[in-house]
Amino acid sequence: MRTLLAKIGEYSGEQVDVRGWVHRIRELGRISFILLRDRSGIAQLVVDSGSGSGKTIAGASQLSLESVVSVCGTVSKNQKAPGGFEIQVGKLEVLAHAEADLPLAVNQAPDKVSLDAILEHRMISLRNPKILSVFRVQSSILKYFAEHMRGEGFTEIKTSKLIGTGTEGGTGLFAVEYFDTKVFLAQSPQFYKQVMVSSGLESVFEIGCAYRAEKHETPRHLNEYVSLDVETAWIASEHELMDLEQRILKTIFRGVERDNADALELWRASMPADEQIDRIPRISHDEAKETISSRGSGKVYEINPEGERILCDWARERHGVEAVFIFGWPRKKRPFYTYPLDARSTMSFDLLFGGLEVTTGGRRINEYPMLLENIELFGLQAESLSDYIQIFRYGCPPHGGFAIGLERLTQKILGLANVKEASLFPRDRRRIRP
Amino acid sequence: MRTLLAKIGEYSGEQVDVRGWVHRIRELGRISFILLRDRSGIAQLVVDSGSGSGKTIAGASQLSLESVVSVCGTVSKNQKAPGGFEIQVGKLEVLAHAEADLPLAVNQAPDKVSLDAILEHRMISLRNPKILSVFRVQSSILKYFAEHMRGEGFTEIKTSKLIGTGTEGGTGLFAVEYFDTKVFLAQSPQFYKQVMVSSGLESVFEIGCAYRAEKHETPRHLNEYVSLDVETAWIASEHELMDLEQRILKTIFRGVERDNADALELWRASMPADEQIDRIPRISHDEAKETISSRGSGKVYEINPEGERILCDWARERHGVEAVFIFGWPRKKRPFYTYPLDARSTMSFDLLFGGLEVTTGGRRINEYPMLLENIELFGLQAESLSDYIQIFRYGCPPHGGFAIGLERLTQKILGLANVKEASLFPRDRRRIRP
Repeated sequence: MRTLLAKIGEYSGEQVDVRGWVHRIRELGRISFILLRDRSGIAQLVVDSGSGSGKTIAGASQLSLESVVSVCGTVSKNQKAPGGFEIQVGKLEVLAHAEADLPLAVNQAPDKVSLDAILEHRMISLRNPKILSVFRVQSSILKYFAEHMRGEGFTEIKTSKLIGTGTEGGTGLFAVEYFDTKVFLAQSPQFYKQVMVSSGLESVFEIGCAYRAEKHETPRHLNEYVSLDVETAWIASEHELMDLEQRILKTIFRGVERDNADALELWRASMPADEQIDRIPRISHDEAKETISSRGSGKVYEINPEGERILCDWARERHGVEAVFIFGWPRKKRPFYTYPLDARSTMSFDLLFGGLEVTTGGRRINEYPMLLENIELFGLQAESLSDYIQIFRYGCPPHGGFAIGLERLTQKILGLANVKEASLFPRDRRRIRP
Repeated sequence: MRTLLAKIGEYSGEQVDVRGWVHRIRELGRISFILLRDRSGIAQLVVDSGSGSGKTIAGASQLSLESVVSVCGTVSKNQKAPGGFEIQVGKLEVLAHAEADLPLAVNQAPDKVSLDAILEHRMISLRNPKILSVFRVQSSILKYFAEHMRGEGFTEIKTSKLIGTGTEGGTGLFAVEYFDTKVFLAQSPQFYKQVMVSSGLESVFEIGCAYRAEKHETPRHLNEYVSLDVETAWIASEHELMDLEQRILKTIFRGVERDNADALELWRASMPADEQIDRIPRISHDEAKETISSRGSGKVYEINPEGERILCDWARERHGVEAVFIFGWPRKKRPFYTYPLDARSTMSFDLLFGGLEVTTGGRRINEYPMLLENIELFGLQAESLSDYIQIFRYGCPPHGGFAIGLERLTQKILGLANVKEASLFPRDRRRIRP
């Protein structure tokens, strides 16, 4: 029965079987100290090549970093060892030998390695405990997001990522050669989640890939990302959606905190408390522009990345939380299906978090005549949206929703410099491997 | 505060606010009986157009099926009403009017509607309670799968679906126009989940889309489907994976049962008990062919769909469960990364359930020299797999895994005739919409 390295303290004086990767080797005469790494943590092995068990561990001195070993030994206390315990090795078996020419160091803080090198050697850089911890946090985000949504009665859906046309026209779409025709990778499950609200599920969520064929080469863009999508019926304004997002974020933050103490320590990250989430200010698009302007940038025409950072700084200083909701976006800046508030603005919002837009959402038009009007206003063809508009023709409740970018949220929780660090195998304009 | 229709019995004699879709209308003189449908169920509204409240519900007689309404009324007992209670309507507001020309009936059993019509009018057919219930079950499968995996210490991962080359050569791949180059939609996250095992996570799962550019037009094939992927370190044989899958299936089946009594009743479905799951026989590929042959088909060269049905019938008669594991598949029938058992066969398995293959899995080669040898044996180029083979060059533990097709499992749980019925927006050779 294998023991996880984090648990060996429970077996002091006893024999244990452990397994893992050779993380570090230090030789002191006939004694080798080996740090072994498994999914639970790191522990020290002590190999005495002069002891009676010498034969069974003959290979120890030829061990290489990253080799995978199976070890049988006795646990003893050692205050200097990581975790306060170590294992006196009785038997050591190499399950998989690692070559000595590792493309990058697994056992050192990755801070001085370039992102390009980290991504180029992704298969190996992921073994670095600090880099890998990003994806433990991401797994927790996925868990707590889904748990929260189910707890509020939402149904999980999985919709097609192969679509005939884009939700917002044909720009920014990747084309797929589909038998004798051409389809596109979905930018968002927007239309489908609206279908599922109107189907009678009322409240749905989806965790799925989204694709943007944008040529951006910035620390905030990915061409393929995971979208945490939410859509719910019966809302009257976008403020109910912001309330919902605040509840979701609290669940995620508290869950990540509970399950990822190690990762948060490695990244020196701390998450907003519930009281801070409650204090996230909500300002209109006009107020947002004024706030940016008042902080020195002169007249502001639109909220660019620099403006997003200024707004989050402002929120931190004024409200004690580095996040802000911006509502009332202009109609011309939102897609045709966004519910208008008046002639100029819409019932929509963004959430900026840590200086970055992590969510876009809003109430959607559910009234058939209003939708047809808006389709025309936007210069679109109702015929090209004929499947979509069926749901409004036959009774669709008032509703709205939003999407949280998984990688961006991960990035901001841990304070990563580049969103690509929060994607296992990021895709950008130049990168399609590994 | 809105009350769900399934809960009105708790408010007998009280006033409630309810919302939903008009499911059925029956007029008896000045009284209208309206069945209202929401996400929780169906309840009866009673509208007396001659009563004092006549003015506020003047529109009731012009109500159309599928219109969305908000209703205020008083709950009273009525043994003849669905659920045993009904609502005497005081006020009724139409939130969204539905046109009268519904493309298909929402309020009738869909059994006589062709699958083509159901999929052609998917936006509306999903409103049919029986059709919609398929996706409530699917949501439960997703929930309990993830819960089970996390409970066993697995980490959830999200990997790229845009890849440079296929895991099994270039056939069956959809090409994507990616900026100035061409990439492909992943057939499976196979390589990436192996990377994540070797990264130190050890045990991972992924829920994601998978794509097969196959021209099949059968009740068992989809060109886009959701794959429930599992990969775990430290296994010695494929039998440990079958054990794991049996545990997963028990969790899913019991969870679906608990949460979806209505759906199971609508589809007259029942799920194997835990004892039946424990009894799923495990037979070798050779034994499987003999069994098919002995049941009348003469010499069997490979296990085709008809053979899969025969084997499940055999298992039902002999072992009391309509499922069977087949292990020891021939090397030439499995991909190059499958761990060989001997010169002829591999440590791999399939699970047939309800006459259909729902899982393929096995132990993978983790030893670098053996992998290189097998790559050559299969006539592949190590250079084209250079990213992948890194993980074996630098120490990869023994491991294996499998994938469960979400739609196939849903299909077999509910006894659906065609796997397309278990996909919200199925994609096949001809169907790329809605």
